[in-house]
Amino acid sequence: MIKKAIIKNFDIKKTLSSSPNRICVADLGCSTGPNTFLAAQNILESLQLKYQLENDQKDFQIPKLTFQVFFNDQFTNDFNTLFNSLPPNRNYYACGIPGSFHGLLFPESSIHFIHCSYSLHWLSKVPEQVRDRNSLAWNKGRIHYTNASKHVVEAYASQFAMDMMSFLRARAEELVVGGLMALLVPAVPDVLLPSDTTNGTEKDLLGSCLMDMTKTGLLREEQVDNFNLPMYYTSQSELKAIIERDEHFSIEKMEKLNNPKKHVQMPTVQMRVLYLRAALEGLLVKHFGAEIMDELFKRFSEKVAESSFFLNPENQKSIVLFVLLKRNSN
Amino acid sequence: MIKKAIIKNFDIKKTLSSSPNRICVADLGCSTGPNTFLAAQNILESLQLKYQLENDQKDFQIPKLTFQVFFNDQFTNDFNTLFNSLPPNRNYYACGIPGSFHGLLFPESSIHFIHCSYSLHWLSKVPEQVRDRNSLAWNKGRIHYTNASKHVVEAYASQFAMDMMSFLRARAEELVVGGLMALLVPAVPDVLLPSDTTNGTEKDLLGSCLMDMTKTGLLREEQVDNFNLPMYYTSQSELKAIIERDEHFSIEKMEKLNNPKKHVQMPTVQMRVLYLRAALEGLLVKHFGAEIMDELFKRFSEKVAESSFFLNPENQKSIVLFVLLKRNSN
Repeated sequence: MIKKAIIKNFDIKKTLSSSPNRICVADLGCSTGPNTFLAAQNILESLQLKYQLENDQKDFQIPKLTFQVFFNDQFTNDFNTLFNSLPPNRNYYACGIPGSFHGLLFPESSIHFIHCSYSLHWLSKVPEQVRDRNSLAWNKGRIHYTNASKHVVEAYASQFAMDMMSFLRARAEELVVGGLMALLVPAVPDVLLPSDTTNGTEKDLLGSCLMDMTKTGLLREEQVDNFNLPMYYTSQSELKAIIERDEHFSIEKMEKLNNPKKHVQMPTVQMRVLYLRAALEGLLVKHFGAEIMDELFKRFSEKVAESSFFLNPENQKSIVLFVLLKRNSN
Repeated sequence: MIKKAIIKNFDIKKTLSSSPNRICVADLGCSTGPNTFLAAQNILESLQLKYQLENDQKDFQIPKLTFQVFFNDQFTNDFNTLFNSLPPNRNYYACGIPGSFHGLLFPESSIHFIHCSYSLHWLSKVPEQVRDRNSLAWNKGRIHYTNASKHVVEAYASQFAMDMMSFLRARAEELVVGGLMALLVPAVPDVLLPSDTTNGTEKDLLGSCLMDMTKTGLLREEQVDNFNLPMYYTSQSELKAIIERDEHFSIEKMEKLNNPKKHVQMPTVQMRVLYLRAALEGLLVKHFGAEIMDELFKRFSEKVAESSFFLNPENQKSIVLFVLLKRNSN
């Protein structure tokens, strides 16, 4: 009956001809809040202000602007919690969008502003070569690229480049011409080795704890060989080069975030360990099982406490890049 | 920095001028699937066909049509399950929209087709008078309006009318002119009393079981007095009159669903009881607690088994109304 009703009654031309004063904003990698709500609020207030400023120069009545905010994260994200944490007095229509931002999430030219914060360092997958024992890039006995062979580093870098390009390709399709995209990307300074940063070192240290556990029979070596973290920390020059390969965006701004608090040492070893555990435990449990987690992080905190390099705040060094892109008319 | 970036770089006029070949469909009261996916698929295939038919009469190339489907239900709905049940090869962009459909869910003129199936018999709340011991409509000793005083029935009817009107008001704003809305509404035939139907009778019977339990001290009488089901079964003439009070819609079609299977007797008493328990247990537990549920439904199944009226398929009588509305240009 619905099919018949549509064939008989739906006036396609008429229903597609409208174009209201609606602005669509998307936050990609939103998690469950509250950071995403703060970001959305900020973006909306800014758009509203910009709109008002433009209209003040004219005579006519400002039509009411309405906002639709699309909150995106992986299918495994807890959208129930996200929805139940939505600010009650929000001035926008909220939507949840499940799916990977390495593919298309929205129809063509349907989004006006995209925000993506602390998400692009997650790769779509572990590069295949690092798990292949016949490849030069086989990452035996490690779980990340810090202190690994250059082949491993290259495999990670090339996965990041591919992911970033598919991200940009999808966003170019979704953004209207003139639309903006603000990216906050965890990164390392140019010219530094991963092992020069605590961020890189802590992942190497965690890998060494897993290897220690193979020696006492708690784990098998192949289990560690087969596990690699799907994360990559780019640099400003590397990211700039990747973006410039996509002809749809112009870089309006790109700079290191002035975020001095990031460089302050975590107050205690325990807090530093808990922070890493919160970020990585989900991935680790999936591969190694929940039983070994307490033992693993006990060993890890012992190693952190012993390391003079690790607890020197001067070695923190990881940065966040702010990148503003505009969808051009190419 | 984002605020500044927007003030400096966002071109509002340019970014709002596009109007791509995108069709937005919403299913209101979608639950967790799979029914909602079947409905969406059917609607999309029909729209695609209609589009193709119109284009076949012309010379030019058909531009690709893209679909965005908005799945709406209450904040308490399990959107995680919904998202993880999405058909993998769907040809639409999926969005989750949490919130009550008695209020606005979407920006003005942003939806082309709305579907709402087996949801409008749920009221936004229990009518206040039926819980007020100073009101003529106080529904003492019952949990629904079947066999209750006419004041109780009127209170329910008036709540349904208010809910339906706010539903229509919101949809009139959200639908583009020419947009369609298909409603499937559980109802009763005109001229029947609720007590003439098994649907009404079973709720009255359930209430009487709760009252029986007050006599053995398992419940207090006020607990039953304070509990009422927020559901109402309209009739065709009543629904038609309410819709006609809203000037934004024209009724393109309204008829009883030809659904003979609904009139077949449930094969066993136990299945009939389980069906009702599945539908109402959530509400009952919230008010009475989980402990008494087994006892309540044991008593209920005994009463059902004893009732000759109840097990006669001729007394089923509940119907489903199919209503097709078009957003007119008023």
